[in-house]
Amino acid sequence: MGSLNACDILDASLAGTGCLEHPLDAEEFRRHGHKMIDYIADYYNSVDKYPVRSQVEPGYLRRLLPETAPNQPETVDRIIGDVTSHIIPGITHWMSPNHYAYFPSSGSTASFLGEMLSAGFNVVGFNWMSSPAATELESVVMDWLAKMLCLPAQFHFSGGGGGVLQGTTCEAILCTLAAARDRAIARGSDISRLVVYGSDQTHCSLKKAAQIVGIPTSNFRAVSTRFSDSFALTGASLDRAVVADEAAGLVPLFVCATVGTTSSTAVDRLLEIGEVASRHKMWMHIDAAYAGSACICPEFRHFIDGVELADSFSFNAHKWFFNNLDCCCLWVKNPAALVAALSTDPEYLKNKATESRQVVDYKDWQIALSRRFRALKMWTVIRCHGVANLRKFLRGHVRLAKVFEGLVRLDRRFEVVVPRYFSTVCFRLRPVRAVRTGDEEVEEEIASGLNRRLLESVNAEGRIYMTHAVVGGVYVIRFAAGGTLTEERHVRTAWLVIKEHAEKLIDDVDILNW
Amino acid sequence: MGSLNACDILDASLAGTGCLEHPLDAEEFRRHGHKMIDYIADYYNSVDKYPVRSQVEPGYLRRLLPETAPNQPETVDRIIGDVTSHIIPGITHWMSPNHYAYFPSSGSTASFLGEMLSAGFNVVGFNWMSSPAATELESVVMDWLAKMLCLPAQFHFSGGGGGVLQGTTCEAILCTLAAARDRAIARGSDISRLVVYGSDQTHCSLKKAAQIVGIPTSNFRAVSTRFSDSFALTGASLDRAVVADEAAGLVPLFVCATVGTTSSTAVDRLLEIGEVASRHKMWMHIDAAYAGSACICPEFRHFIDGVELADSFSFNAHKWFFNNLDCCCLWVKNPAALVAALSTDPEYLKNKATESRQVVDYKDWQIALSRRFRALKMWTVIRCHGVANLRKFLRGHVRLAKVFEGLVRLDRRFEVVVPRYFSTVCFRLRPVRAVRTGDEEVEEEIASGLNRRLLESVNAEGRIYMTHAVVGGVYVIRFAAGGTLTEERHVRTAWLVIKEHAEKLIDDVDILNW
Repeated sequence: MGSLNACDILDASLAGTGCLEHPLDAEEFRRHGHKMIDYIADYYNSVDKYPVRSQVEPGYLRRLLPETAPNQPETVDRIIGDVTSHIIPGITHWMSPNHYAYFPSSGSTASFLGEMLSAGFNVVGFNWMSSPAATELESVVMDWLAKMLCLPAQFHFSGGGGGVLQGTTCEAILCTLAAARDRAIARGSDISRLVVYGSDQTHCSLKKAAQIVGIPTSNFRAVSTRFSDSFALTGASLDRAVVADEAAGLVPLFVCATVGTTSSTAVDRLLEIGEVASRHKMWMHIDAAYAGSACICPEFRHFIDGVELADSFSFNAHKWFFNNLDCCCLWVKNPAALVAALSTDPEYLKNKATESRQVVDYKDWQIALSRRFRALKMWTVIRCHGVANLRKFLRGHVRLAKVFEGLVRLDRRFEVVVPRYFSTVCFRLRPVRAVRTGDEEVEEEIASGLNRRLLESVNAEGRIYMTHAVVGGVYVIRFAAGGTLTEERHVRTAWLVIKEHAEKLIDDVDILNW
Repeated sequence: MGSLNACDILDASLAGTGCLEHPLDAEEFRRHGHKMIDYIADYYNSVDKYPVRSQVEPGYLRRLLPETAPNQPETVDRIIGDVTSHIIPGITHWMSPNHYAYFPSSGSTASFLGEMLSAGFNVVGFNWMSSPAATELESVVMDWLAKMLCLPAQFHFSGGGGGVLQGTTCEAILCTLAAARDRAIARGSDISRLVVYGSDQTHCSLKKAAQIVGIPTSNFRAVSTRFSDSFALTGASLDRAVVADEAAGLVPLFVCATVGTTSSTAVDRLLEIGEVASRHKMWMHIDAAYAGSACICPEFRHFIDGVELADSFSFNAHKWFFNNLDCCCLWVKNPAALVAALSTDPEYLKNKATESRQVVDYKDWQIALSRRFRALKMWTVIRCHGVANLRKFLRGHVRLAKVFEGLVRLDRRFEVVVPRYFSTVCFRLRPVRAVRTGDEEVEEEIASGLNRRLLESVNAEGRIYMTHAVVGGVYVIRFAAGGTLTEERHVRTAWLVIKEHAEKLIDDVDILNW
């Protein structure tokens, strides 16, 4: 058998063809890596030129691509060419300064550099042993963040708690719910009697997590919220639901309170909910997926007052904290509960460090065994900017939302539907008085239809992109500022675009139906 | 209110300091991105110089870093300097050509370029609508891969099935198990009676997934395997367990068969298991996390004969298919079962494309809502190399393992403990005849101790890194070839290193204890 060396892996026939000759040759990596950096930098320079929401039809890409994989290599240039011609038209430009849909996809230079390091080292940090720095850096930055958020000491490693970086809030809720469930089962409860509580505004990931961990569908409670409470879950309404369940012989298990709901950025009454949770011995999780990051600013910190009563707290750094997807920060007061539900200890992972009990093995804090070195990007983001500038950026986004809110309020045809707390404004064209029938329901229906058409018209054109929600039966358009590239001029233009479409629509409606 | 524009976000005071002036300025991105490419290329050029397994002690990094986040920005150069001085000593170099531990962390230039695009576009592809290309490219490459693996048509989208990219096998198993559970519950089964089967060699993620979805711990079966079957799960032993459970009034739910177990790369008897699963109406999943990729080579395809009987099949492209972490490929025959267990349909995600039923919404095929554009890296890997070269690379790794196996077999002090099927060799120092006591158990214990000390001695020195397993009571050292940078000269050196440590150890033992 001949010797297998670089010459066997290098494909000499590819030399000079522009194809990769080796799966990981440092100089090929360098050459093509530089090319890709330029490609992405150019993309950021021109991202505002594309329709924000992709305008393609279902199946567009399958028609463009071959049905089977190529047998022979293709050049990197050709692939990049296909990204330009086939992929870019099919993506919605989440990084566009004119993207106001959903919540922002937070991306930054600093985070990208961290992502590069993470992909470059490509370590599989399941336990401390498999790459100590991956675990230790994560613990350190989670403590940094806990301090930035003024989380009580019980959430810090030094206070017996600790933080972990997961992919998404869905995973964070699933893990904490599994921990709560197993604690309850260990105390003698039957899984079929356990009840999970959120509000009708809670993110769908709670219901999904409850379903995954085996809570019967009939034991999931979406407690109603009201317009007059700005769609916040209150202690009183939660307590009513809990008391009724207890009376029926069920066992209250878990409540998820939200700071910044997806539909309208409502803030649940944490202090009241915490009191109810504590009285009924439930696990309380706070999902601050979107708004949590803002709470590093002293003026927003009050929104998480009550976190001291919670068992766990999470926010998505990929939403509004300059970390690229994905990055969810989760803290728990009692890591042992997570570990009890999620630990595994196979022989092939046994090692002295774990046995010494001096280290954290994050595989036991999450679903997956393999885990990326996500802490690198959080570390680069925090260090590249510093806490003072991060606060400044967040405040800048809130100020952009205020600018937009002011513009809406100046135009009597529009209204802001719910209070704006952060960088998202929920607004709509008011129910049209011209068709007043005296029947409010009919008015509301017409208004919903009109706003739906307005949103579709704006999005189809592509200069800006927003999405909608329905709160308390009211169809609202959501304007989520906070894109990393968004400046005030973009917001002002967005408002002009909206007004332009609204005017055309109102004209059309006047002629056709009124 | 003054206008907020780039000047407000740009921090003029940082100009020329080397700090980032803006969270995402295209030219800053370009400048620092190029710097980072060079840093990582240089790392690949020198990665074989570092001790493969990190040599740090628990707590090393916390002692080096400040206790709180910096308030002011730091320069990218300083952060990169800290990566060199603080992080690199604390990582285990999974990308080193001398890393033979666990299974490889497969990384490549092509995948890195795909990762850059994914992080650069930073789209949140939860449903088709949120970025059509992300969904469509994923469906296309999963069909490409299904064809490369000769998976039956029922796993292709055109055949009513389909594939999805998840993070890890843990997630893939959790999702399929939840789907199987909900199907059984819908048919009237009680969760407390459902039973999950694997072997004593199955990856720990099966037990963890069973725990998470609420299967009682007492209903998890790790069916025993035998040395004489090369640690494969057989149909007969599975059937015995299933029949016993049925007799006890329990309901067989799910069996996970493995192609390439973690400890010894054993291959379960898929055809036999499939027959049992089908007879007892169980969901059969095939976990080919490590070895699945090899099956794109016709000569290895027979290892997944029987996949036609399975309900789902998965392999980790980040293990041995040149994709950076994380990337698990999962196919199911019946996506509707996944969707029934995992779908959510909140108002704020409603859109025309979903309502048209012409599109796939991958959020309903996985745990998380938010998802990265992982298909980009799989697409770049396949296209940059082509199927023919990918097969060549995989065969090259198998050939390296054969070289190592040959070296072990030539040295009578060592033995290969189980058959080598792929690129991993399980070997050990034979039980030492010099201390023959006639008692085999004592001999085995001494051998285990000796091999443990050999492995620790090799790893502590850092020139190469391997890990261990225990199969059938035998402590084995695992030599997993397949690192992207590994060449034959590395493997030959590794063998010299192992022999050198073994000789020293045998000398010491001779003097001290024998």
